[in-house]
Amino acid sequence: MYAHYLEKLQGIFTPLLVPVDDRGQINEGELRRFVSWLIASGVHGLYPNGSTGEFTRLTAEERRRVVQIVADENAGRVPILAGAAEANVRETLAACEAYAGMGARAVAIVAPFYYKLTPESVYAYFAEIARNSPIDLTLYNIPMFASPIDVPTIRRLADEFPRVVGIKDSSGDLAFMMRMIAQVRPNRPDFTFLTGWEAVLVPMLMIGCDGGTHASSNAVPEITRRIFELSRAGKYEEAMIWQYRILELFDAMLYPFEFPDGFRAAAELRGFNFGKGRQPQTSAQRTDRESLSAVLQCILADFHLVNPPAEGCPVRTGLIGRDKMEQVVYQVLHELERRGAI
Amino acid sequence: MYAHYLEKLQGIFTPLLVPVDDRGQINEGELRRFVSWLIASGVHGLYPNGSTGEFTRLTAEERRRVVQIVADENAGRVPILAGAAEANVRETLAACEAYAGMGARAVAIVAPFYYKLTPESVYAYFAEIARNSPIDLTLYNIPMFASPIDVPTIRRLADEFPRVVGIKDSSGDLAFMMRMIAQVRPNRPDFTFLTGWEAVLVPMLMIGCDGGTHASSNAVPEITRRIFELSRAGKYEEAMIWQYRILELFDAMLYPFEFPDGFRAAAELRGFNFGKGRQPQTSAQRTDRESLSAVLQCILADFHLVNPPAEGCPVRTGLIGRDKMEQVVYQVLHELERRGAI
Amino acid sequence: MYAHYLEKLQGIFTPLLVPVDDRGQINEGELRRFVSWLIASGVHGLYPNGSTGEFTRLTAEERRRVVQIVADENAGRVPILAGAAEANVRETLAACEAYAGMGARAVAIVAPFYYKLTPESVYAYFAEIARNSPIDLTLYNIPMFASPIDVPTIRRLADEFPRVVGIKDSSGDLAFMMRMIAQVRPNRPDFTFLTGWEAVLVPMLMIGCDGGTHASSNAVPEITRRIFELSRAGKYEEAMIWQYRILELFDAMLYPFEFPDGFRAAAELRGFNFGKGRQPQTSAQRTDRESLSAVLQCILADFHLVNPPAEGCPVRTGLIGRDKMEQVVYQVLHELERRGAI
Amino acid sequence: MYAHYLEKLQGIFTPLLVPVDDRGQINEGELRRFVSWLIASGVHGLYPNGSTGEFTRLTAEERRRVVQIVADENAGRVPILAGAAEANVRETLAACEAYAGMGARAVAIVAPFYYKLTPESVYAYFAEIARNSPIDLTLYNIPMFASPIDVPTIRRLADEFPRVVGIKDSSGDLAFMMRMIAQVRPNRPDFTFLTGWEAVLVPMLMIGCDGGTHASSNAVPEITRRIFELSRAGKYEEAMIWQYRILELFDAMLYPFEFPDGFRAAAELRGFNFGKGRQPQTSAQRTDRESLSAVLQCILADFHLVNPPAEGCPVRTGLIGRDKMEQVVYQVLHELERRGAI
Repeated sequence: MYAHYLEKLQGIFTPLLVPVDDRGQINEGELRRFVSWLIASGVHGLYPNGSTGEFTRLTAEERRRVVQIVADENAGRVPILAGAAEANVRETLAACEAYAGMGARAVAIVAPFYYKLTPESVYAYFAEIARNSPIDLTLYNIPMFASPIDVPTIRRLADEFPRVVGIKDSSGDLAFMMRMIAQVRPNRPDFTFLTGWEAVLVPMLMIGCDGGTHASSNAVPEITRRIFELSRAGKYEEAMIWQYRILELFDAMLYPFEFPDGFRAAAELRGFNFGKGRQPQTSAQRTDRESLSAVLQCILADFHLVNPPAEGCPVRTGLIGRDKMEQVVYQVLHELERRGAI
Repeated sequence: MYAHYLEKLQGIFTPLLVPVDDRGQINEGELRRFVSWLIASGVHGLYPNGSTGEFTRLTAEERRRVVQIVADENAGRVPILAGAAEANVRETLAACEAYAGMGARAVAIVAPFYYKLTPESVYAYFAEIARNSPIDLTLYNIPMFASPIDVPTIRRLADEFPRVVGIKDSSGDLAFMMRMIAQVRPNRPDFTFLTGWEAVLVPMLMIGCDGGTHASSNAVPEITRRIFELSRAGKYEEAMIWQYRILELFDAMLYPFEFPDGFRAAAELRGFNFGKGRQPQTSAQRTDRESLSAVLQCILADFHLVNPPAEGCPVRTGLIGRDKMEQVVYQVLHELERRGAI
Repeated sequence: MYAHYLEKLQGIFTPLLVPVDDRGQINEGELRRFVSWLIASGVHGLYPNGSTGEFTRLTAEERRRVVQIVADENAGRVPILAGAAEANVRETLAACEAYAGMGARAVAIVAPFYYKLTPESVYAYFAEIARNSPIDLTLYNIPMFASPIDVPTIRRLADEFPRVVGIKDSSGDLAFMMRMIAQVRPNRPDFTFLTGWEAVLVPMLMIGCDGGTHASSNAVPEITRRIFELSRAGKYEEAMIWQYRILELFDAMLYPFEFPDGFRAAAELRGFNFGKGRQPQTSAQRTDRESLSAVLQCILADFHLVNPPAEGCPVRTGLIGRDKMEQVVYQVLHELERRGAI
Repeated sequence: MYAHYLEKLQGIFTPLLVPVDDRGQINEGELRRFVSWLIASGVHGLYPNGSTGEFTRLTAEERRRVVQIVADENAGRVPILAGAAEANVRETLAACEAYAGMGARAVAIVAPFYYKLTPESVYAYFAEIARNSPIDLTLYNIPMFASPIDVPTIRRLADEFPRVVGIKDSSGDLAFMMRMIAQVRPNRPDFTFLTGWEAVLVPMLMIGCDGGTHASSNAVPEITRRIFELSRAGKYEEAMIWQYRILELFDAMLYPFEFPDGFRAAAELRGFNFGKGRQPQTSAQRTDRESLSAVLQCILADFHLVNPPAEGCPVRTGLIGRDKMEQVVYQVLHELERRGAI
């Protein structure tokens, strides 16, 4: 029944940041260079038009263009999962068609957002798409931004539509992931479970996830790959050392910035020029960004992925670098508190 | 300093529902007929591309077309407040330009949604638009769907940008409205405060609001107009009798349906054909809609605006019709409970 | 059927702060002096053991003692509504019995807290108490602290138990209050609706509330009384001038402090010594309290209820005193922001 | 510096349910029998007066009595962690003194509840207790019921007060647990981290937790013990098989019931008589309880811990028993939906 599925989606998929030039247009050259660097750095797949790719801040035409460039540069090296949510079902199906034509392995459709829908309507929305899509699709559950997709709805869609081949969940809730797996996997061994919350990637892999789509892999693709491989090999203790370090980086990229600007700041330290994001910033925010970026540079230097800043970084010792932690984490937490986030 | 403002926005602005034809395309003829009926029924202004107009489910092109049709049919009879939020600041400014050219009195810009932004970023977003817009703009605060706009941000924008001429708030929070008025009105007597929560329209007018944009005015424009006039005349006791009845209708249109389908169902009872909304429905939902529509018909019949259903309605007595209340409200509440909304 | 009810509860009931002495014990002398001052200042009733009275921070014995002192000092001058919630139904019923014996007019029972219960369990809890209570009881809905009491549950309890004579709602939600009144008043004209959110007291009285229990009346009993009388006389415009000023005071007492410490700070300015509250404070918090108290003194001086601080207050002009507002409200808002409350 | 600590708290601590007799009084005989059965079944420690023990529904005297009985029956066999939160700091310290006298290993203090306090006040509260307590104390973070304890506050308390020896966290948030461990463990290797969310016990142990306090261990102490030992031995795959089964049981005990009644229903199936809980129930709820109890019996029968019900249970196959899952989980989910919990 599921024989038409080429192969189960698994591994680390990067939800790509989108570089723009000085006029705010998509920077094709830099995007191509970034795609090839990510693949060379070991990511298993590419995920254009995700939340990290700021799909809602692009026009419909720009979203197509992003996938076109990514697919062209990829040239079949890794599978592409293309974000295809548009204003309504008809437009979404047109995007599905387009991305199928570009060679995407599957599309990812975020649950309806802005309006908060009931489970019955979330079901109706995905069912209508699944019935008509020319390409496999994965559900995308991100309850902090969109209508939640609950477990009975996921099961219902998985049971009824072979075209629905997986879910990406960005809630970071382990028990929720286990409930999904327990409900869906017996019937649908081909169904893939991806987590979008790299703060807990190792535990997620341990409980049975197939991989993840992680904004952090824009900045440290080597590390997310390593975590995946160690976990798959059952080397959880070693994987957890990296997990604790990813958590430190993740928190430093996520909380003090407007998403996804911290991830952009870190990826820039790897040698790419993403330009200014499309969300305007005040001058106070631009100043913040500089000092926060120095914090990120110290963390990445600690991974030996970049040089430390000229002014140096504090010495690190202990579980995840106690002395540095006192500098970094407190700086981050202070900022968080200042912004009312904690 | 604010001499360039033609006149303060006030009264009831209808956030228009958008009729579609059998193929799901905008039904221009029905939209024109609806616009003229609303004006004839007494609404003070029109608000295309609001949440009720499902602006997020239209394409960018369709949003333009809706305003074009509305402006053309209106032919200058009432002021138009056009929803102009697009994917990013550049696209939004282009829409502002377009709507200015179509003769809109002002545009309404919803706070950034999907991503939840901090107050500093909400400020940066509106400031960038206000600095460059060729047309007056009103802020649109709808915290259940979009990033909240807090009081200090509203004051900051009102103090710095004459182009920002008002706010529409759909929180329904009286104290929040009072805080805004206390902060902004002393400096900006021309600034307009509109409520989007007709459940409490009379109290909002009593505390100093200038009017409202009410989804209910798609179905009962005469009644929202009457409430506005009674309140403006200081006849609060009489206004409250209608307010309690609007609350009954509002609750029956809002909670048992996915927004804005209940408002569409009620407006259809007034003789318009809105077609199927763009959000797919299951057959269970379609059956629900029929029985819920009969409930709405009984309420509207009670306003003497439509005939009761052939099978009749229960007798009403008491404050807001006790016997009917037992039928209607319990039916609604039961449905609410069933859906987990209460 | 409801003939045994003496008279409907209405007007302003003060949820009394509890003065303690240097050893942290209830300060009986000061409590008596405070009770008599409140009555002389015009409050319609007294409400010991409310949230403002920090009932959860007293022992069961202390709660009894507070009501005993209040009732004794009151000596029948005004009705007493005694908070009677204890650890479980049996203990609560014992408290009801005790307070009936002390001459309380009724008891107020907060919905179960700590555990968040379903509506069915909230019903079961109140039903068990209502069936056995020797004294009239009012429901107390404070969803920010306790299990919410929803409208169908309120109606069910009102319809089944004559002993349930009212509800105090601290949600501040006008539409919710209207839904309760629409559901309950036709059947139970004797049922009383009290609001606990003085930020919107005038609108609440306008839509049909019978009064309120307001923490602010510990500090400005004259003003809450005046607002009540103006509203009852239909003089809403005059009442709203005071309402806006109460809002300024309320916000300055509520948000920058841990509840109810701001109300305590303001009541101290009226000449009472409440001692240190039972919640410990850090030295940073004690320093904050002093500067925040100076802000409160300026607001109260503006009501001509206390002298301004020796160092003076900024000049006030405009709707609610623009210049002062720039000092006060911004100070408060800054503090709020610092604490992440807005 | 921490030499006075006997030994780090670790393993599974049971937050004991409290049996009551027909008159609603603590059933001492049954409580003693239960304590000894739990110890014989392998739990590492006992935790009277937790949320599962409904400490808020007991009087202050009853809370003392519960610990007294448990300590006496335990007779030093396993360490006791006694819940000691009372109405205020003075009363709490008196309880600490009492429980120290009864031989408790440490006390657990829940964050202040009812009022929602800021981090600074949460710190002040625990600091005041830690400065004066004659016995080691663990913080108890349960944000769904009480003021949250954030990471900077935990670190501050751990750094300043040797008496604070651990935290029990019931949020179930893996990343939050990792942040606490990263912040506190380098400085305080003796500090213990316990999770209260058995749905994710294996992942929690994998990331570095020292154990847990699990309501489920009232019903299946053997299984929680086995999970702990398998995880400690690094046998995560085997541990996860049991984890998925515990999740099924946990969800069936937690969601369809008012907490902790589902855990009581399951523990009764093990041969104990807990009597009626102190929260009243409607007859509809009592009927529900019977059918839900049959579901629990099938799950426990599947663990070979009890006999299946006379009417039998559906066949189970698959990952965690697909056929049964269709019966059980859907039944649970349906109930959840009915109650609006999902």
